[in-house]
Amino acid sequence: MPNEGSYEAALKRSREVESDIASGKVEKYTMLTGDRPTGRLHLGHYFGTIKERVRLQDLGVRTNIIIADYQVITDRDTTEHIRDNVYNMVMDYLACGIDPAKTMIFTHSAVPAENQLMLPFLSLVTEAELQRNPTVKAEMEASGHSLTGLLLTYPVHQACDILFCKGNVVPVGRDQLPHIEVTSKIARRFNERYGKVFPDVTGLLTSTPLIPGLDGRKMSKSYGNAISISMTAEETARLIKKSKTDSERFITFDPEARPGVSALLTTAGICTGRDPREIAEEIGNGGSGQLKKYVTQAVNDYFAPIRERRHAYEDDLDYVKDVLHDGNAKANEIARQTLDEVREAMGMVY
Amino acid sequence: MPNEGSYEAALKRSREVESDIASGKVEKYTMLTGDRPTGRLHLGHYFGTIKERVRLQDLGVRTNIIIADYQVITDRDTTEHIRDNVYNMVMDYLACGIDPAKTMIFTHSAVPAENQLMLPFLSLVTEAELQRNPTVKAEMEASGHSLTGLLLTYPVHQACDILFCKGNVVPVGRDQLPHIEVTSKIARRFNERYGKVFPDVTGLLTSTPLIPGLDGRKMSKSYGNAISISMTAEETARLIKKSKTDSERFITFDPEARPGVSALLTTAGICTGRDPREIAEEIGNGGSGQLKKYVTQAVNDYFAPIRERRHAYEDDLDYVKDVLHDGNAKANEIARQTLDEVREAMGMVY
Repeated sequence: MPNEGSYEAALKRSREVESDIASGKVEKYTMLTGDRPTGRLHLGHYFGTIKERVRLQDLGVRTNIIIADYQVITDRDTTEHIRDNVYNMVMDYLACGIDPAKTMIFTHSAVPAENQLMLPFLSLVTEAELQRNPTVKAEMEASGHSLTGLLLTYPVHQACDILFCKGNVVPVGRDQLPHIEVTSKIARRFNERYGKVFPDVTGLLTSTPLIPGLDGRKMSKSYGNAISISMTAEETARLIKKSKTDSERFITFDPEARPGVSALLTTAGICTGRDPREIAEEIGNGGSGQLKKYVTQAVNDYFAPIRERRHAYEDDLDYVKDVLHDGNAKANEIARQTLDEVREAMGMVY
Repeated sequence: MPNEGSYEAALKRSREVESDIASGKVEKYTMLTGDRPTGRLHLGHYFGTIKERVRLQDLGVRTNIIIADYQVITDRDTTEHIRDNVYNMVMDYLACGIDPAKTMIFTHSAVPAENQLMLPFLSLVTEAELQRNPTVKAEMEASGHSLTGLLLTYPVHQACDILFCKGNVVPVGRDQLPHIEVTSKIARRFNERYGKVFPDVTGLLTSTPLIPGLDGRKMSKSYGNAISISMTAEETARLIKKSKTDSERFITFDPEARPGVSALLTTAGICTGRDPREIAEEIGNGGSGQLKKYVTQAVNDYFAPIRERRHAYEDDLDYVKDVLHDGNAKANEIARQTLDEVREAMGMVY
């Protein structure tokens, strides 16, 4: 990635946007984020991004959420359970406070005019630039699947996702910055060649703490170390109860030496707004048993209202479908309009 | 490319299709061909492919022609003159006998649901398979442009072009067989993973002779050695007059030693249906001057009715636009239907 994409420059731009938003200058920002519908959203998603989306939505930033169903097949050969996953994802969003009156929720596969942007956008990047993307390589290795054409071109569909709705703010972790850099490059090159259609795009670097899974490793459904938003209080208690701590009775916060105990403390800390060290001191000699009870209580208290709302949506699948239909209709309208501008700029109006 | 894609196997399949068509079994065939709208169609296009399309169309094969406007930017950074090129291409088609009541003529950029197929199709090929395509490499080198993402994925959009309308016959030269192999592979893998949606695709290996440009090199607008269908009789005469022959007065057909003279003889031969050797003998000591007169007469006689029809279309741009609008509307209808089947097969119906 070029120099301008360096972390410091990205952080500076991100802070400028944050400061604009904090001071109420929200009207110039359109945000795009999304998730792969491969399973239920968990605490990592909630505290890592969903909560932040709700915050930005409520501050008045135009918010768009793509359920990236085609991204499911970047590194797997099946779309099993996809419909179920998509509906549950919408339920999670709604339960967490995403408001469909303010936020457009849509599925990638429902918006052909967005996807058509792949063609002109692919002409704006070289094969060498696609090959050079470190995040794509890392994701490919993590998946254990051979690199598909879809994963190779992943930063280009992401550019379509962001630019079709003229998104100019994308919440990202540091490792996602190379993708945003590709989107910026595509927007810039398109504008240079054909005339200004697309905005400058800024990655909004999130400062939320990373929550580990219950065993201290990366939180992931496949590790069985993730508490899903959609779990019941009992399921949550059970998962926490069987989480692995260590033989040292006295509770201390030490993520390096005591990953299990510390992960539980971090989880309790984020749900209660308290410092994990303070919680550790309080429990002290109470041991893992008392710690687990505390964490269970903290998680279940925090998510009780969210889970209550979720139950209501589970009982009203028609409403969930309506939200998605409305979001998809709106996304199609926006995508058609942008594609018209793109065709006009490229002279492809016949 | 795998063994099954070997030339002999491809030739055998091609002959089976030819034999079906010759014996009137046309109803099971849907053909897709197309052109990049980078300039006017010339004699190479006409005798190499357009005439064959008209033949298949008139035999009752469902015929579809894509004006591949996005392919213009696989190896260049501008879409200059694209609209003019597209309209003129339609005029060339109509003048040559393509009948819009039988053949669907449409532009690539007008069919979003076709282009969306890029996403699922890219998941069905690996980066290694994209890299391995010899024709893409050759085209990249010929263009002198760095390999764009769009050229790298060219066989995948071609698969979209062919498969969105369930095309199962594609007229190709031998060098295009690797592309068809990618399309077949994508169709096969999709059907295996998600259920049968797409047909088997056969490359129809054309047996038409290769017509060289007037100087004996590959016919190309950029070499100035190509007679366009749209030229006037006078422009044709002028271009033939200034074509380079050699200092040997006596006319003989010898493509190796006398490329210019032989190219003229080939051109005259194909327009008159005569053997170039016979024409050479007839002219004999008449020299280049007499040969050029003969060729000019042959080309202008052959293309007189085509050019007359073309003038009528030039004077009726509204009709030309209508043909394209109708074709685009029909292509969109077909593409939406196919995309619906694809979504259904993949479970992406919400």
